[in-house]
Amino acid sequence: MSVTDELLDNNARYAESFSGPLPLPPAKRVAVVACMDARINVYAVLGLREGEAHVIRNAGGVITDDEIRSLAISQRLLGTEEVILIHHTDCGMLTFTDDDFKKSIQDDVGVKPAWAAEAFGDLDADVRQSIARIRGNPFVPRKDSIRGFVFDVATGKLGEVTG
Amino acid sequence: MSVTDELLDNNARYAESFSGPLPLPPAKRVAVVACMDARINVYAVLGLREGEAHVIRNAGGVITDDEIRSLAISQRLLGTEEVILIHHTDCGMLTFTDDDFKKSIQDDVGVKPAWAAEAFGDLDADVRQSIARIRGNPFVPRKDSIRGFVFDVATGKLGEVTG
Repeated sequence: MSVTDELLDNNARYAESFSGPLPLPPAKRVAVVACMDARINVYAVLGLREGEAHVIRNAGGVITDDEIRSLAISQRLLGTEEVILIHHTDCGMLTFTDDDFKKSIQDDVGVKPAWAAEAFGDLDADVRQSIARIRGNPFVPRKDSIRGFVFDVATGKLGEVTG
Repeated sequence: MSVTDELLDNNARYAESFSGPLPLPPAKRVAVVACMDARINVYAVLGLREGEAHVIRNAGGVITDDEIRSLAISQRLLGTEEVILIHHTDCGMLTFTDDDFKKSIQDDVGVKPAWAAEAFGDLDADVRQSIARIRGNPFVPRKDSIRGFVFDVATGKLGEVTG
């Protein structure tokens, strides 16, 4: 049995006690942008319940055009007003460089990705960079509450990145 | 108190019973790509525990360059082998068109996004489109198990999209 099949069995059990449907717009009017890291269970980390916040995730929790697209839809069509960014300690993005990763792909398949891999060397600086990318973008209208955090995978705590 | 501050209070309680750190590579070698919709608590829906799967999310759960980037990093650097795609009923992406959304942004701020909004009219067809985008991409190496599902927000059940 594949892992996918195993997780589908879990879903059948989940559905047994499911109560829905909830409304489409996020009840707490918040959008979270977090790293895809397996150790960050966003709902548990923030004490969120189903229906309360949009959750956007990718490698690093960085802001590219696709996160701007998601945030623009989240704010303009579904009414979210606050943004929470979550990076984390022991992140895979700290372990390589864009150039090396893209060269390894080119060596493997003969084509170099046209996109940036978005590796970074400093966690706090990259959280600030993500905030700056949202602040500097014309398509995300609500910028009063854009706050960035580092999740500590050893303690479970969020530490705010300021300045 | 902002919602962000309220969620930080929740995090302090979460950290009290946190045990970590877990290893960086996902234990179940799975990457999930799901819509950002607030009603999809991916860990609960799939019975995942912390540390088991990468979770990538955006508006629609669609595949753009940023999801390819995340999947390439997930598979090439962190060893995942299976991909699970999750769209869902009552999705906001079914309620508008790219042209209208982008025109509304242009009318508001004077600039039209260069990116596609990725709205879609048919859930199953868009799941198949997402699978096709991964299958057709050279940068994601492991394509033996790419399966797509629609999460029913009324029942909590995942239904597989085949064919």
